[in-house]
Amino acid sequence: MVERDVAAPIGAEQLLRELGIELPSPPTPLGAYVEAVRSGDLVFLSGMLPVVDGKPKFVGRVGGELNLEEGRRAAAIACLNGLSVARAFLGSLDRVSAVAKLGVYIATDGDFREHAKVADGASELLQNIFGTEKLSPRIVLGVASLPLGVPIEVELVVEVRNL
Amino acid sequence: MVERDVAAPIGAEQLLRELGIELPSPPTPLGAYVEAVRSGDLVFLSGMLPVVDGKPKFVGRVGGELNLEEGRRAAAIACLNGLSVARAFLGSLDRVSAVAKLGVYIATDGDFREHAKVADGASELLQNIFGTEKLSPRIVLGVASLPLGVPIEVELVVEVRNL
Amino acid sequence: MVERDVAAPIGAEQLLRELGIELPSPPTPLGAYVEAVRSGDLVFLSGMLPVVDGKPKFVGRVGGELNLEEGRRAAAIACLNGLSVARAFLGSLDRVSAVAKLGVYIATDGDFREHAKVADGASELLQNIFGTEKLSPRIVLGVASLPLGVPIEVELVVEVRNL
Repeated sequence: MVERDVAAPIGAEQLLRELGIELPSPPTPLGAYVEAVRSGDLVFLSGMLPVVDGKPKFVGRVGGELNLEEGRRAAAIACLNGLSVARAFLGSLDRVSAVAKLGVYIATDGDFREHAKVADGASELLQNIFGTEKLSPRIVLGVASLPLGVPIEVELVVEVRNL
Repeated sequence: MVERDVAAPIGAEQLLRELGIELPSPPTPLGAYVEAVRSGDLVFLSGMLPVVDGKPKFVGRVGGELNLEEGRRAAAIACLNGLSVARAFLGSLDRVSAVAKLGVYIATDGDFREHAKVADGASELLQNIFGTEKLSPRIVLGVASLPLGVPIEVELVVEVRNL
Repeated sequence: MVERDVAAPIGAEQLLRELGIELPSPPTPLGAYVEAVRSGDLVFLSGMLPVVDGKPKFVGRVGGELNLEEGRRAAAIACLNGLSVARAFLGSLDRVSAVAKLGVYIATDGDFREHAKVADGASELLQNIFGTEKLSPRIVLGVASLPLGVPIEVELVVEVRNL
């Protein structure tokens, strides 16, 4: 067990290492846009998809072709891609002082009800990496379709701390 | 009739009292997120649902199981929940200097057309409380489904004035 | 060919003129909201529709009644309306220092996959006017329906440079 200096909270990069999570390479834009732009202390990220090595890891709708657990995993993968973009943009996730917005958009049929459980696939990942004191507000919508036919798109707006 | 000091505009809290509107308790998050986060002068709120005492007040789609008027009422209730969160977070709605974003997301079928009228259920409430000079920009979408099966989700980003 | 001072980059207004693009009049709100609000250095715009002279230029879903090319044109028209609002609000598009968010919301059926190509109708317009160095992050969703039955809604958040 590692002894910790109580005055120095554990950073996101150290938590990632302790969790054994290796971030993927940042995704490549699908069109004439960039993955992140900074304005003031906010970094706005593009919509992140559950893409691994440039290919959709899941295709279909949650509650249709895909079940709840697959939706949760897709939300986590999309969120990891967002963290990868944030790290590439900022140099280190330790510079993220808050998550100002988490949007989780879920391709569903009209009678789907379990949005919150699916979105927690992204929220719990953020909680594990940034800690409970940096929990984000969250917008969750069931949408008709998403790029490449994926079940999940994640939107992140993060606040930067100047180190 | 109350005499008013022209130099001191009526605040949102006084307008709420004059309208006889009592805000509900702030809703409880449905997962690993919080209802509001401040970054700089902006407060980002989570998506607000038409929930009363923890239960959905309406379930279904606008233009389907629910009519236009029910959609408008659902939008107003979701917006009241957002105001309740903003007050709990800021201490007083008088500290809201602007509404930077109002998103109204409406569960609909593909042939629905009356989004603007439904969204006005939220916009007119904000207008009554913050005044015409603080009208917000607005994003309105018809979505496939929403958490708990509710017909409306409201997104608010408000700007804080330091009193 | 015009000789250019390398030290003085071409502004958006000059690029618009060189492209022969004349911006339309800003659209009129469909309800109790305004087209733009500034908070700090950010200007939040309302959702922009592919409306010309107050009438929808396209009605229907992309991949249904409308094809990909019509979707792209609708995205460009909605984006032009946004630029018109930004110019009216700021006095000149040369004051836009960054596009912090581009949202492109596309009315589609569940099996639509070509969201990125449609959204590029808006992104390529922004690239032509603001230059490659100001490319925006982008959120693209397939939604169930949009106000007035249009196929596209565009959301813009722009950063203002104080001249």
